[in-house]
Amino acid sequence: MTDQDDLLPVGLEDALPARARAITEAMRAVLDAMDGHGYDRVRPPLVEFEKSLAGRMEGVATRRMIRFTDPESLRTLALRSDMTVQVGRIAATVMASAPRPLRLCYAGDVAMLKADQLDPARQRLQLGAELIGSDSVAAASEIVGVAIDALKGAGLGNISVDFTLPDLVDTLAEKALPLDVDKREAVRRELDTKDAGGLTAAGGEAYLPLLYATGPFDEAIAKLAEIDAGGALASRIAGLRDIAASIGKRARITLDPTERHGFEYQSWFGFTLYAEGARGTLGRGGTYTIRGSEEAATGFTIYMDPLLEALGTRADEARKTLFLPLGHDRDAAARLRAIGWRTVAAISGSEDAKALGCTHRLEDGETIALG
Amino acid sequence: MTDQDDLLPVGLEDALPARARAITEAMRAVLDAMDGHGYDRVRPPLVEFEKSLAGRMEGVATRRMIRFTDPESLRTLALRSDMTVQVGRIAATVMASAPRPLRLCYAGDVAMLKADQLDPARQRLQLGAELIGSDSVAAASEIVGVAIDALKGAGLGNISVDFTLPDLVDTLAEKALPLDVDKREAVRRELDTKDAGGLTAAGGEAYLPLLYATGPFDEAIAKLAEIDAGGALASRIAGLRDIAASIGKRARITLDPTERHGFEYQSWFGFTLYAEGARGTLGRGGTYTIRGSEEAATGFTIYMDPLLEALGTRADEARKTLFLPLGHDRDAAARLRAIGWRTVAAISGSEDAKALGCTHRLEDGETIALG
Repeated sequence: MTDQDDLLPVGLEDALPARARAITEAMRAVLDAMDGHGYDRVRPPLVEFEKSLAGRMEGVATRRMIRFTDPESLRTLALRSDMTVQVGRIAATVMASAPRPLRLCYAGDVAMLKADQLDPARQRLQLGAELIGSDSVAAASEIVGVAIDALKGAGLGNISVDFTLPDLVDTLAEKALPLDVDKREAVRRELDTKDAGGLTAAGGEAYLPLLYATGPFDEAIAKLAEIDAGGALASRIAGLRDIAASIGKRARITLDPTERHGFEYQSWFGFTLYAEGARGTLGRGGTYTIRGSEEAATGFTIYMDPLLEALGTRADEARKTLFLPLGHDRDAAARLRAIGWRTVAAISGSEDAKALGCTHRLEDGETIALG
Repeated sequence: MTDQDDLLPVGLEDALPARARAITEAMRAVLDAMDGHGYDRVRPPLVEFEKSLAGRMEGVATRRMIRFTDPESLRTLALRSDMTVQVGRIAATVMASAPRPLRLCYAGDVAMLKADQLDPARQRLQLGAELIGSDSVAAASEIVGVAIDALKGAGLGNISVDFTLPDLVDTLAEKALPLDVDKREAVRRELDTKDAGGLTAAGGEAYLPLLYATGPFDEAIAKLAEIDAGGALASRIAGLRDIAASIGKRARITLDPTERHGFEYQSWFGFTLYAEGARGTLGRGGTYTIRGSEEAATGFTIYMDPLLEALGTRADEARKTLFLPLGHDRDAAARLRAIGWRTVAAISGSEDAKALGCTHRLEDGETIALG
């Protein structure tokens, strides 16, 4: 073994004790919040047939998956790069006959063969919840609320939710703002990048006002309603207003109706989660249709790295940790652990209790603070 | 997508809600028990350089690893098939200067390209703790105790621990029961398979009595002490007695000094964990030397599948779950969740609360049991 073998490949890293503990705590809090809203955790495997992972949902970058040949079936297997598709498979197959709406949640590692340009990580801890059987306004309101509760449960304060309308162009292009089918993709792209010049060049002049119906929810939705003279968006606007009302003051709501990056497979509603302290997005969600089973669903995904970034480095309050000298009373130590003490036992007698992180020492059955 | 794509590859499976919940609970309990004894969790990545995983410890079946080429480094990467080697790497590299003894624990999925004959699973959830910097009797006593506490924490009752002496033949062959170097491997193998005829044929007649120093600890260790006329095993026998004494009545202790399968890399002490209700072993542990850094260590590994088997199907007490009708008071629901209620909200008004697993219904601010 060379020293180089001791390094980790680019984009893969160890979470050492402090970070691992923060991950465990945040993960438990997020899972507990989802569980509290009736979402049952499922644990799909790390590896599946590539076709099953790649085939169930649009917009998943299959080229980035880690693939290899199964010696058993001689078929191509892949390491999961997204757990949403696995939950969709479960809903469509082994849980096809479970009552709807079906509420499932998950937390697990996903891996990519190649990092993307914005994020060098090749492994991410993905957490999320899916409400399967509905893409209604009520379903969307619930999912946004669960996402907010999950982030608050993990300890986040200032949460922002940015709403979008992923199928906006399709909805308008038919009648309200007519657009040839072959021009729609270009118009979507220019709207997504907020390029007014490009939008005009692509034949989307009529869509220009949409670029300005953006910002804090109340003002932005009012602007969108003004643009929607023909009423093509009326039900969507009403839906967004209902969802925003259901959230109330629990999060700051903004609107960016033309945002489309990251919402390639969502239908009428999408949202992005932000929090003070994190540079990027914490996660995304929205309404969609499960490919294959064509069942309506609403869900969200959050990622652990930006969540930890938003949580920041907390003052690492020294955990009360009790040093147990050689020959200590094992039963007494067990009783102290049972009431919440963390213990570190001497095994040689030459230990430096403080260097090992201890705050107290067991002496004659008493817990004495280390000076 | 064909129906076949909906199936999972052989040896890989989904954990659906009931099983996933059991896994989450057992995993939290095991991790909390290890944490209580001062073991810090680390989270190494799913994927590493193959050489790093394969090179750090003997006895790891590298042929069974899932391997692929890294497009970044053009080197071979592998999906981890054992987390112990990853913890060894962490101890030897990024945590090389952390004070000793270093107590680390882990829990995570490992995967194999091919199943072994006894276990068709190609993915396993591995949990364990490593005490790095010592392979003393005190270290071994602590690790066996932590393993027992972890299993008890998960809810197991009747735990058995079977002690072994992995380097028994090497210790005896030098002087007490002389054996040519080229005969030792055959003698080890025949002892491991308890084949008296084969042992004799392999030139190991003198080792025959070892086959009978097995069973409940007190009697078996007395027999082993009788065989050890020259005193070559004296320190080992004293060590085993000390470890057994430290466990006291917390588990049933047995001895099988010639057991070697599964202890290919352990040094003087090894143990296997059993529990009533599980057919196979729950896990193993012992003393070893971390390859590369050559640091002494003691640790154990347990696997989730046999642990769940030993826990058995518990009477699935219906969790108190509260149905929230359409138009319910959201703040009241949040307050009820905060005091431990699990809620399931109506989104259509046509839900069957009982079919969705609810036991209660919120009515006029009161929780009413469903009839």
